[in-house]
Amino acid sequence: MYDVVTVGEGMLRLSPPRYERIRRARTLDVQMCGSQGNVACNIARLGLKTAFVTKLPDHALGLLANDHYLGCGVDTSHIQFIPGARLGVNYIEFGATPRASTVVYDRKHSAASTIAPGDFDWDEILKDARLAYTDGIFPGLSSTCRQAAVEFIAAAKRNGCLVGFDVNYREHLWPAKEARDVLSGIIKNVDILITTQWDSEIVFGYRGSYEEIIRQFHRDFGCKIVGITLREVYDVLRGAWNTMVLHEGNILHGQKFEIDVIDRFGAGDSWGSGFLYGYLTSNDVEYAMNFGNALCALHHTIPGDVAHVTVKEVEALLNTQDFREKR
Amino acid sequence: MYDVVTVGEGMLRLSPPRYERIRRARTLDVQMCGSQGNVACNIARLGLKTAFVTKLPDHALGLLANDHYLGCGVDTSHIQFIPGARLGVNYIEFGATPRASTVVYDRKHSAASTIAPGDFDWDEILKDARLAYTDGIFPGLSSTCRQAAVEFIAAAKRNGCLVGFDVNYREHLWPAKEARDVLSGIIKNVDILITTQWDSEIVFGYRGSYEEIIRQFHRDFGCKIVGITLREVYDVLRGAWNTMVLHEGNILHGQKFEIDVIDRFGAGDSWGSGFLYGYLTSNDVEYAMNFGNALCALHHTIPGDVAHVTVKEVEALLNTQDFREKR
Amino acid sequence: MYDVVTVGEGMLRLSPPRYERIRRARTLDVQMCGSQGNVACNIARLGLKTAFVTKLPDHALGLLANDHYLGCGVDTSHIQFIPGARLGVNYIEFGATPRASTVVYDRKHSAASTIAPGDFDWDEILKDARLAYTDGIFPGLSSTCRQAAVEFIAAAKRNGCLVGFDVNYREHLWPAKEARDVLSGIIKNVDILITTQWDSEIVFGYRGSYEEIIRQFHRDFGCKIVGITLREVYDVLRGAWNTMVLHEGNILHGQKFEIDVIDRFGAGDSWGSGFLYGYLTSNDVEYAMNFGNALCALHHTIPGDVAHVTVKEVEALLNTQDFREKR
Amino acid sequence: MYDVVTVGEGMLRLSPPRYERIRRARTLDVQMCGSQGNVACNIARLGLKTAFVTKLPDHALGLLANDHYLGCGVDTSHIQFIPGARLGVNYIEFGATPRASTVVYDRKHSAASTIAPGDFDWDEILKDARLAYTDGIFPGLSSTCRQAAVEFIAAAKRNGCLVGFDVNYREHLWPAKEARDVLSGIIKNVDILITTQWDSEIVFGYRGSYEEIIRQFHRDFGCKIVGITLREVYDVLRGAWNTMVLHEGNILHGQKFEIDVIDRFGAGDSWGSGFLYGYLTSNDVEYAMNFGNALCALHHTIPGDVAHVTVKEVEALLNTQDFREKR
Amino acid sequence: MYDVVTVGEGMLRLSPPRYERIRRARTLDVQMCGSQGNVACNIARLGLKTAFVTKLPDHALGLLANDHYLGCGVDTSHIQFIPGARLGVNYIEFGATPRASTVVYDRKHSAASTIAPGDFDWDEILKDARLAYTDGIFPGLSSTCRQAAVEFIAAAKRNGCLVGFDVNYREHLWPAKEARDVLSGIIKNVDILITTQWDSEIVFGYRGSYEEIIRQFHRDFGCKIVGITLREVYDVLRGAWNTMVLHEGNILHGQKFEIDVIDRFGAGDSWGSGFLYGYLTSNDVEYAMNFGNALCALHHTIPGDVAHVTVKEVEALLNTQDFREKR
Amino acid sequence: MYDVVTVGEGMLRLSPPRYERIRRARTLDVQMCGSQGNVACNIARLGLKTAFVTKLPDHALGLLANDHYLGCGVDTSHIQFIPGARLGVNYIEFGATPRASTVVYDRKHSAASTIAPGDFDWDEILKDARLAYTDGIFPGLSSTCRQAAVEFIAAAKRNGCLVGFDVNYREHLWPAKEARDVLSGIIKNVDILITTQWDSEIVFGYRGSYEEIIRQFHRDFGCKIVGITLREVYDVLRGAWNTMVLHEGNILHGQKFEIDVIDRFGAGDSWGSGFLYGYLTSNDVEYAMNFGNALCALHHTIPGDVAHVTVKEVEALLNTQDFREKR
Repeated sequence: MYDVVTVGEGMLRLSPPRYERIRRARTLDVQMCGSQGNVACNIARLGLKTAFVTKLPDHALGLLANDHYLGCGVDTSHIQFIPGARLGVNYIEFGATPRASTVVYDRKHSAASTIAPGDFDWDEILKDARLAYTDGIFPGLSSTCRQAAVEFIAAAKRNGCLVGFDVNYREHLWPAKEARDVLSGIIKNVDILITTQWDSEIVFGYRGSYEEIIRQFHRDFGCKIVGITLREVYDVLRGAWNTMVLHEGNILHGQKFEIDVIDRFGAGDSWGSGFLYGYLTSNDVEYAMNFGNALCALHHTIPGDVAHVTVKEVEALLNTQDFREKR
Repeated sequence: MYDVVTVGEGMLRLSPPRYERIRRARTLDVQMCGSQGNVACNIARLGLKTAFVTKLPDHALGLLANDHYLGCGVDTSHIQFIPGARLGVNYIEFGATPRASTVVYDRKHSAASTIAPGDFDWDEILKDARLAYTDGIFPGLSSTCRQAAVEFIAAAKRNGCLVGFDVNYREHLWPAKEARDVLSGIIKNVDILITTQWDSEIVFGYRGSYEEIIRQFHRDFGCKIVGITLREVYDVLRGAWNTMVLHEGNILHGQKFEIDVIDRFGAGDSWGSGFLYGYLTSNDVEYAMNFGNALCALHHTIPGDVAHVTVKEVEALLNTQDFREKR
Repeated sequence: MYDVVTVGEGMLRLSPPRYERIRRARTLDVQMCGSQGNVACNIARLGLKTAFVTKLPDHALGLLANDHYLGCGVDTSHIQFIPGARLGVNYIEFGATPRASTVVYDRKHSAASTIAPGDFDWDEILKDARLAYTDGIFPGLSSTCRQAAVEFIAAAKRNGCLVGFDVNYREHLWPAKEARDVLSGIIKNVDILITTQWDSEIVFGYRGSYEEIIRQFHRDFGCKIVGITLREVYDVLRGAWNTMVLHEGNILHGQKFEIDVIDRFGAGDSWGSGFLYGYLTSNDVEYAMNFGNALCALHHTIPGDVAHVTVKEVEALLNTQDFREKR
Repeated sequence: MYDVVTVGEGMLRLSPPRYERIRRARTLDVQMCGSQGNVACNIARLGLKTAFVTKLPDHALGLLANDHYLGCGVDTSHIQFIPGARLGVNYIEFGATPRASTVVYDRKHSAASTIAPGDFDWDEILKDARLAYTDGIFPGLSSTCRQAAVEFIAAAKRNGCLVGFDVNYREHLWPAKEARDVLSGIIKNVDILITTQWDSEIVFGYRGSYEEIIRQFHRDFGCKIVGITLREVYDVLRGAWNTMVLHEGNILHGQKFEIDVIDRFGAGDSWGSGFLYGYLTSNDVEYAMNFGNALCALHHTIPGDVAHVTVKEVEALLNTQDFREKR
Repeated sequence: MYDVVTVGEGMLRLSPPRYERIRRARTLDVQMCGSQGNVACNIARLGLKTAFVTKLPDHALGLLANDHYLGCGVDTSHIQFIPGARLGVNYIEFGATPRASTVVYDRKHSAASTIAPGDFDWDEILKDARLAYTDGIFPGLSSTCRQAAVEFIAAAKRNGCLVGFDVNYREHLWPAKEARDVLSGIIKNVDILITTQWDSEIVFGYRGSYEEIIRQFHRDFGCKIVGITLREVYDVLRGAWNTMVLHEGNILHGQKFEIDVIDRFGAGDSWGSGFLYGYLTSNDVEYAMNFGNALCALHHTIPGDVAHVTVKEVEALLNTQDFREKR
Repeated sequence: MYDVVTVGEGMLRLSPPRYERIRRARTLDVQMCGSQGNVACNIARLGLKTAFVTKLPDHALGLLANDHYLGCGVDTSHIQFIPGARLGVNYIEFGATPRASTVVYDRKHSAASTIAPGDFDWDEILKDARLAYTDGIFPGLSSTCRQAAVEFIAAAKRNGCLVGFDVNYREHLWPAKEARDVLSGIIKNVDILITTQWDSEIVFGYRGSYEEIIRQFHRDFGCKIVGITLREVYDVLRGAWNTMVLHEGNILHGQKFEIDVIDRFGAGDSWGSGFLYGYLTSNDVEYAMNFGNALCALHHTIPGDVAHVTVKEVEALLNTQDFREKR
């Protein structure tokens, strides 16, 4: 019934108006973040049917989070509201050259970190679903999340879903060695893997060219498709985005986009979302890769972690880059 | 009595804070737009006596519009307030590379579109005026506006006014062929014509170099002065501005300005305004052209459709480009 | 499948920050309004399954509207996006004693006003639905809306739905006599009718006490339940809310709430929403009436046309009015 | 040519968002204040032709001030821009019970305080004018202003204008005794005098009932019309407004209005403005008095020192006080 | 060296603009809260030398908190910055009648909750201090805080400081029985005790009149001074404030103030702060009580948990309540 | 006792939201500026003990100023509050290419300009201080400030403090010749002198390379250390920052930083602050120069005149420029 089901954690994202320091804040802008929910939102925005599965606190912030997903078109009927729990919070400070943007995490002890095996009826949720998605952050949240991630992916396989997974290593959650042990077990079951050069080296010790890295993932874990992001950072406010994808032994090189960085948080999730959308709707990996690139480029120009973008807008950008105003 | 009289339509211009998507807006910034009113505002800001003639709805939004023109120093005493009418609205979304800015028009059935021949006593209004101005948008609003535009220009000629006109073709208003038929009749009476490469090709089928295009207008319609805008778009937030003018058979090349694009809506109107101001006050076409360029460059850095700029500021920029803060 | 299906028009609601005049606005707050969509939102907020059926323009404002309903938990899958159409807009100015708040309507020619018979497959949409709702605004939008309203209610009856209807007469849409003719035909099929003293007198010529008015509706049209709102207006910022309901010949008197008026727009819709929710979940008319009163009282304190309130919050207020902060 | 000409000082008015303390401000709202300019604005808003005569600094703040008056419809062509001068500033902190609102004046050494006899060609400006207006603040600004005020009123008499004057004593400008000496000389030439109980006692030593006070002014200075304001202050946010007027020996009692105090600064000026407007257009003192009361009541609900109100709105309030929203 | 030293927890206080629901927030206002820090801030604002002792996280939010206390004039040199710790957060939603304001606490696992005996050199900090202050919240944070509270008060007695303490029972921290056991041990050493009717009943089972309650505290624990707050809540936005104090067997009745409730959070702390300030500077209990009442009344009108008020402002209110603007 | 004591003037700094023109402002952001106070703030932020000595008006704006310095950790106990005085104000308009940012000064007649010899007990304040700082603005404020500056520096020498001084010539305060006479007398007593190419030429007539300029200062006045700033202005929003320092006859070349210009006001003060901090803590001139460069680069990205930056952040930038977000 769903095109894509994701599981993980949603966090409140608070930031002072652009360029103000957190320590000087008198007002904070409100967004939601969290990679797995971002993916559910982005793909729902593009028109597929998605569900996000998580636990939220049973108070006003839980409702704010729930409304955020609802408002992007995501099915939230499987979300559980936990009395006495808390919502994780990310505080973001937006910088300008040479001051990089920074993130302060306050995510410990969150409702989502109590997700445990048996909490959700995965066979019911994933029945007839086309793709199940989570990432390396979710099993890093707690030992019960680790088990729940394994349970989720096993159920996905059992129900004939494709499995998508982003390595997304976060140092503040667990040591690289521990992540490698856990993720290695999971990635064996992954069909579509997304990674970055840094994640690949720090967790799996893969070195060499981008091409060599994704070939190593294929060799070690057998993933059908491996995508790696190529992010150029000219300075804090300007850069470029591209990706490279390995598919059936072939290396595909994507179309590169120059970007103004208005808000780059969640940009990697947008590429993954665009790729998955493109792949599910066209079965054409090259199209999917470039669709992801264009979605991700647009994402950088929009406040918040979600790319509030339509398929028509992405395809228009793929056809032509016209920087003049559209009347 | 007036230096410049313009006729046309004023629209409410609403936009989310910079970079936010319209679909996510919780607050909208308020400006007024509409090329003919912009020109009246810009030239009044520079110190000449202008009047803007239009119809507005007889409710609070009409008052907001009226106060906008008043606040720029424009004479609004000829504006008529129409019970039950509506004010057109433009919704603007400001983008960043590679997401271009966009405009959503909601202008149909506006009070201004009901302007018809006989509504205004043009001989009274234009008596002793030096220049009458409108553009290709006004006759595109409705068939009565078409007739009113012709009536306005005839009255201008009859009263010895110079006639200024910007081609300003808008696809959402009428087909190019229809525009060509109507505008051809009008432009024969125009002294100072303003156009762009795109307008010239799409409406009149003129191709070739900028120089060839403006020579064709002179050849076909006999306009005394033809100006064409040369806008370079490096990306969404950066560009350059220049113009070329044909005058008594001579091609004049203007001074080019590099710009940060804070708000480019109405920039073409600012060039026209600057040119008309310069021409009316100095009778020197080259000065007028460059005055327009500098005004237009400043316009790009100011929120809203009007260049709230003084003559002194324009001339300072023409003398020297100093990017250091002025104390 | 749905608990409640509503049909009608959603409008953008724009207002300057509290107490600023529209004519002085430099920024506008964004909300959505429109009674039938408000009812779908309110009841979805309370946890029932609702759908809102309408037409929206096929541009960014249509997406904004769609996202608003989505974000309240309403099913928007039946909404049609119409190229080239417009979204109606309401401009609200909030006053303080003695300056009353005002509304400027700019709703003509909207996408919703083009709703016509045959546009929607009502038998499909209303299949298994429990209640169908619209009001006297919808048939007032255009002659095709009039026919569509009749078609909608006929389909509701055919599919065994209860029919809820609010008289909601709007002078700016049609003359009272025309409204009476059309609404008389509709109300014969209505199970739950909502009215006000003013609507009842102006449209149907009913005079007398509140009790006499609702008895007349029952006598003339046979509605099973008739509710009438009793709004006390102490001044612009303070008042009280109550209702009276006729059910099976008995007059029920509700519980009155004192209120600070932060935003009263949509308050009547909130009472209707609360009543319908209470009735559908308890079948107890007195409970439903008071549930509506409490929801409506809370509504007055929340910015926007929708009461973003949970069942738990309404019941807490019904149990006890404690004005101290809740920790 | 003008209906009303006023002379005096315009000041920038800065205030933190409602209820924030000045010492905690991170943002300030911008308005203009100054009683004589307020009167010119209010009466222009009502549709008469007014001019405000003053000196402003020759920099951006001077332009801001000029644009404010322009935007209210006031003729600003007589304003002089003084290089190197400053604009006075008022900082306002809005309180709530029991914290009263406060004003910090920073008005010394302003451009306006350099106004001196001979600066303006009063015979030219006042030619054909109907009424000349200033108040007790203007002569208090400096010794040259004192002489200029006398010069202005003499010119008004010479040109057959009515003279309107508000006592408006300000302790921070001059001692009461000095004010009394100067104002006594001026008031002898005043036709329409406006005062308060406090001003009357502190400056002129008048005690007793409101009726006695205005009779004393008439007796001592011969003013044709004397109005006194009756302001009731229930608490910081609630009050009532009324006035009493002496005309040809008769005491007229006005209609009282209950008010929510959103912004009371400039309220006295609004009463004066409404009275002068009413008197000039109807010659009916009672109508003028009540017109002023209603305008002043509306003023209290609008942010800023100017009552942005139309004649229609004032008359609607005089006819009926309806606190329900107007659709 | 310090007049007052307080120990406890500072929390970030986030709230949507007045009246918006948390679940709808797109922006949040930033303040700091936490009773013990509030007291240090309030008394520093009044001009005495205070220090606030706590632990903060070693990241940008810790700096924001530190800057808040610094900015009120509090000595923050004893604050410890803890790597990897978090800052507690309070989310406040401001209501209007009948919707009460609400608080969502997210304070668990905070840096301050890890305060333990031995963390601070109390003899050094309290040397020459005049008064040590904490409350019933601090020992409720964790078992180590409980021990640290006892340690702090013992050190205060050893160093000859007066001890001030507010019962401040918080249900979300610990059961009443546990609080009673811990607080009973502490209160024996308290010189100045502050309580409310509700705290007294729920924790200590004291019933009866206000007078009886404070006499019971004196009888059971021997506190020299016992103050109890008398808060009248007319509705959500209006109320009154008074207190009663027992001193050397005498009951003192305070001066009552009517108030508009702009922000009542921290109001109790303001009374305590005002009382302590008054007592330390005058040794006159009645003056101290009324000084606290006036400070607390002003507090209700100011955004945030701290009363940014000077001694002069408090005394002006004690002398006279004048609701007119102060020029 | 203090590491650094500075004396001079604090001014309110008001600016419209980025890019809005002052003349169009409806809201202004609030900061404090003034070079000597900026230096005290910046160095306190870095952790040294600083005091700022000045006079402020005895009203709410004086408190705002005082709280600003307090909130940066500066000792404000020597500040004197002057009844009836005013606070100077700077109005800043932020531009974009080609519109440069502008400053409107309204600083005349300020409380600080009345500082006179004998106002402060310098021997008490500077006792045990390490460094005394002021600049060329302070003696330019008035003739009494001129004498007070001389008195301050004499006291510094007498108490064994190092003396730091920035030439900071301001044309709007005094003619270059007058500045040269006064500053020449002062600079003879300066240990650490900061200048720019423009200041050096306009005041002292020094021409030639940067190296030659600073050698001339050393030759003419004997300053131990002379620093000169090398600011590259690519356009209004982009540039680079570097400095060159002469120390014991050696020319040191600093590390250059590329910058996005968010707010460059006070950037020179930040370099001086960073240099002084680095010098006082390490006695290493090269380290101090580069510390200043990095602090100044960060300053350009932060709203306001003060660099709210920690030592750790500066050192991180000195070690590596990483433009990616820091998680």
